[in-house]
Amino acid sequence: MLKIECKPVETYKVVVFGLGDIGIGTTELVLNRSNLDMIGAVDIDENKAGRPLGDLLGNTKNTDIKISQTLSEVISASGKPDVVLQTTGSYINQIYPQLQELTSAGCNVISSAEELLYPYLRNPDLADKIDDMARTNNVTVLGTGVNPGFVMDALAMVLSGVCQKIDRVEAERVVDVSTRRPALQRKVGAGLTVDDFNEKLATGKFGHVGLLESLALVAVGMGWDLDELDEVIMPVVAEKDMDNLDIKKGHVTGIRQIGIGKKDGNELIKLILQISAGAEEPHDAVKIFGIPDMDVVINNGTAGGLATASSLVNAIPQVVEAEPGLALMGKEVFPRFAPDYKIKLIL
Amino acid sequence: MLKIECKPVETYKVVVFGLGDIGIGTTELVLNRSNLDMIGAVDIDENKAGRPLGDLLGNTKNTDIKISQTLSEVISASGKPDVVLQTTGSYINQIYPQLQELTSAGCNVISSAEELLYPYLRNPDLADKIDDMARTNNVTVLGTGVNPGFVMDALAMVLSGVCQKIDRVEAERVVDVSTRRPALQRKVGAGLTVDDFNEKLATGKFGHVGLLESLALVAVGMGWDLDELDEVIMPVVAEKDMDNLDIKKGHVTGIRQIGIGKKDGNELIKLILQISAGAEEPHDAVKIFGIPDMDVVINNGTAGGLATASSLVNAIPQVVEAEPGLALMGKEVFPRFAPDYKIKLIL
Repeated sequence: MLKIECKPVETYKVVVFGLGDIGIGTTELVLNRSNLDMIGAVDIDENKAGRPLGDLLGNTKNTDIKISQTLSEVISASGKPDVVLQTTGSYINQIYPQLQELTSAGCNVISSAEELLYPYLRNPDLADKIDDMARTNNVTVLGTGVNPGFVMDALAMVLSGVCQKIDRVEAERVVDVSTRRPALQRKVGAGLTVDDFNEKLATGKFGHVGLLESLALVAVGMGWDLDELDEVIMPVVAEKDMDNLDIKKGHVTGIRQIGIGKKDGNELIKLILQISAGAEEPHDAVKIFGIPDMDVVINNGTAGGLATASSLVNAIPQVVEAEPGLALMGKEVFPRFAPDYKIKLIL
Repeated sequence: MLKIECKPVETYKVVVFGLGDIGIGTTELVLNRSNLDMIGAVDIDENKAGRPLGDLLGNTKNTDIKISQTLSEVISASGKPDVVLQTTGSYINQIYPQLQELTSAGCNVISSAEELLYPYLRNPDLADKIDDMARTNNVTVLGTGVNPGFVMDALAMVLSGVCQKIDRVEAERVVDVSTRRPALQRKVGAGLTVDDFNEKLATGKFGHVGLLESLALVAVGMGWDLDELDEVIMPVVAEKDMDNLDIKKGHVTGIRQIGIGKKDGNELIKLILQISAGAEEPHDAVKIFGIPDMDVVINNGTAGGLATASSLVNAIPQVVEAEPGLALMGKEVFPRFAPDYKIKLIL
């Protein structure tokens, strides 16, 4: 006979800040979770603010929330949320003023901003300031997601837990972007000529954001004082006409991006990311060379869009309970499903 | 230019309690870690106590530690350790008096005892007592390892972090025991006749300990109030003479053990463990059926012996820093390599 103790988990008040694709997906998940009380949604776009949140959601979602243009509007109307899910941008510079606003309002923040996964890398001063203001306001700030946030960093760190010694880490993610949203297809240059791709590349604002952040986080997890970080970005080119995808032979199907971390000339970490239309055998893989070796494959890969929303929402209990400050994945917060019920099972 | 900040991590004083195979492997790893200061080793076996620890270790390990028969001997001579790595038994009943001794001496405990992964399942009263006495003494007690502790439980919990919703979890581990230590080969019945296997099985003390603990921990992680737990154990039988392994056709090569967790008649969790000589394609696998699905394979599987020592040792910093009480894997403590250095990388 199995005896079960079962009680609902804590309830958290949540605001989603930023109603682009990721914000919408995240909102739908928040509304589905019985222990999450969505008290508001914010978007600075004046074309969204004031409208019913339901207008942006799939048919099935019932909510009487109206989109606010500022967090303070939400707080005036509905009180302070326990956590704000921030899905407004990729770069620290861009989201920093919002982080000031959110933390000084006393809200924990879970952000999809790629650079926030390891903000010390490119913005050490702002990272220290974020850590300071989080502590001052007794809240936690976390950057997470799927990539960065899981497949190329946190997962490798978790797998390393069964290793005595680690010599090298490799991770690879291959995504067939033809199955993903059009915005992402454009973002990786699908359909461009190689010249147009290279022109975009030269702007320095093209490609997947966060690969070196993943790499740095893995290095920190392994305790490696790397002395060289390199990143290369190249087009993936169609070898034949891809009629179903409307991409001609010789044109770009997507992006291939490689990050390498070295110490004393030795390659210790290599991350390979390919996001292209029609990519064959999409998968994620992590290899650890050490004692013992670990050779892990996620067949078909981790579904980016769905999983990003999960990463943000599942982190809520850990972030609310974490020590104040800037938290890092694989250090203060780990990937883990956030269940609705606390269970005890007794045989 | 990459700027690096690099400082050594905290140092911890460690005692290994129990010098069987796992304890020896764990001891060797502790001695290899620059931030771990091994201050003693305990074994209640009077044939071991008093001998130089080095006698039990591989050639390369230099240590002037003598094996003690009790923890209090170690504490008298060398002071209180931060953490005791307990590798003395599988069952709560068996290790409970030691846990009393270790926690009341003010030591954190990381144990390889399989039942301690989720002690509520079979020993809810003792589990509550362990939690109480850990809190009273301001220490943390954790049960961990590779199986249970990683492949069939903590790993599944980590992978669930990218899921919105989870309908079912399956995990499978196939180990070719012919590559493992002889004691483990005997433990799974390799070489027995089927009758002898079944006779041993009838004692109730045969087979892998911890499968239902893994299952219960996964259920807790998913928030599932299972109403039925089943476990079946069967022999794996040689289909032909296996001359290289000295096992005859029709005799037992090992064990196959299946754990199933149900709710309302529906199978929500299935764990399949096969440990047999000559098992083909050894691997670990976790499948999550949900949104999104996750289909993960560890090619060749996680090397049990090496990885168990890693799990115990890598958990040290997290256990020392955890809130006092009985901790669970995937809840208070996660698999993660414990590095020697704290690194900050700045581009």
